[in-house]
Amino acid sequence: MKKAERLVALTAILQSRPNELLPLGFFAELFATAKSTISEDLVSVKEALRHSGRGTLETVPGAAGGVRFIPLIEKKEAEQLLEKLAEELSSPDRILPGGFLYMADILYDPAVVRPLGLIFAGIFREKEPEVVVTMETKGIPLALMTADALGIPAVVVRHGNKVTEGSSVSINYVSGSSRRIQTMSLTRKALETGKRVLIIDDFIKAGGTAKGIMSLMEEFDAEVVCLGVLMEGAVDDTPRLIDKYHALLQLAEVDPLTEKSVVKANKL
Amino acid sequence: MKKAERLVALTAILQSRPNELLPLGFFAELFATAKSTISEDLVSVKEALRHSGRGTLETVPGAAGGVRFIPLIEKKEAEQLLEKLAEELSSPDRILPGGFLYMADILYDPAVVRPLGLIFAGIFREKEPEVVVTMETKGIPLALMTADALGIPAVVVRHGNKVTEGSSVSINYVSGSSRRIQTMSLTRKALETGKRVLIIDDFIKAGGTAKGIMSLMEEFDAEVVCLGVLMEGAVDDTPRLIDKYHALLQLAEVDPLTEKSVVKANKL
Repeated sequence: MKKAERLVALTAILQSRPNELLPLGFFAELFATAKSTISEDLVSVKEALRHSGRGTLETVPGAAGGVRFIPLIEKKEAEQLLEKLAEELSSPDRILPGGFLYMADILYDPAVVRPLGLIFAGIFREKEPEVVVTMETKGIPLALMTADALGIPAVVVRHGNKVTEGSSVSINYVSGSSRRIQTMSLTRKALETGKRVLIIDDFIKAGGTAKGIMSLMEEFDAEVVCLGVLMEGAVDDTPRLIDKYHALLQLAEVDPLTEKSVVKANKL
Repeated sequence: MKKAERLVALTAILQSRPNELLPLGFFAELFATAKSTISEDLVSVKEALRHSGRGTLETVPGAAGGVRFIPLIEKKEAEQLLEKLAEELSSPDRILPGGFLYMADILYDPAVVRPLGLIFAGIFREKEPEVVVTMETKGIPLALMTADALGIPAVVVRHGNKVTEGSSVSINYVSGSSRRIQTMSLTRKALETGKRVLIIDDFIKAGGTAKGIMSLMEEFDAEVVCLGVLMEGAVDDTPRLIDKYHALLQLAEVDPLTEKSVVKANKL
């Protein structure tokens, strides 16, 4: 195989297994070549990836070492994506009876949530989270794509209590906007104690759900390193129960009477 | 930029935007080179990708044309992955009170569901589905990754009825195993009528949920082209309400008394 072809195949394999440590010997065997050759190839791949803006290679030296592909998205591209998303979400036909904003189609579109996961990963990687936690249902795709970009698992907190998942911890919380008492639960098996946790959710208004998840995390001795949400309600709207979070978009205005809604992209 | 570097950057960009048609002019501008050069590069990338087993390039000729990366997983790797998963799921400590099998950790681990999505996509791509439909909650990650691999959106059917998603269609269905009457609903906005639908779910026992989704799909004039599930209950266990589906794994045996469970990988 020619060097150029080998570089492409190397890139394709690394990129399809993000965040996974692959030993040099694995590639040496696959391409029937010397480890030193693979080592040189990886230098070229790293340099070329820098130009593509799509990720970087992390090299771990030593016998147990290898190379790991860390997926990235460029800041400029991320900003353009959020601007486009804000515009799309500002469309009048997204306003639902009750003043809600329809965004499920966007949350379940992989072509949208994949890059959103990369954006979240870029923001929170330095906090070194070990698990991404979200609340069912609409937070799941965002949490999963963020977890994929970070190379860590996701954990889903559920409404109520599920008999099919074994013993679980349940807490009651007050939903910030509706002021109703609700229950959320997490299976014991789902989360080891003492983990560094990143909470990801689709929307934050008063913050009741987020506060509930935080209380639940205490039961698992988890340290919540940060909270990332796709969209926050208008800043001067409702007093929030929590104040430390990172929102990508802001629902600045929504009026069911005039059918006008304004979604803005926050600074990255 | 040297040719080899350009090839790596090209591969990285194509792979990070799977199933998206990217015009040759986009790359020509990005690399400040002629379209004819990009065209030659793509021939090399295509050949090298064939060696990597990670995907293929589809070229669409003409003015509105371009190139599209279709992600793939090799049959041998897929089989190994399913064997490994079957072994892991056969562990005695996964048996829960009531004879359920704990598998939520696997369903929410991107490193597992990403390749599972590729496997499903490989099986169902020729049926040309336009949307992946699943039932909340545990089906979502599998459905999302399958949708991502196919380059189509996902749609999530919900238990009960959600006021925050606008007008919806609800149906009652009989859960096949518990024989309880339950409700599932889907927002009108979520699915245009007349689509080709692939149903993806985590588990099938009697098939009540699957049959419910199929009835719901009739309300949207959708054509269900296939049903893919991660795991089926033992074949001679319960008579099934539906018989056409594709399961990757089989729960051959689960005995809460002896704490023994046997999960087998089905032939691909």
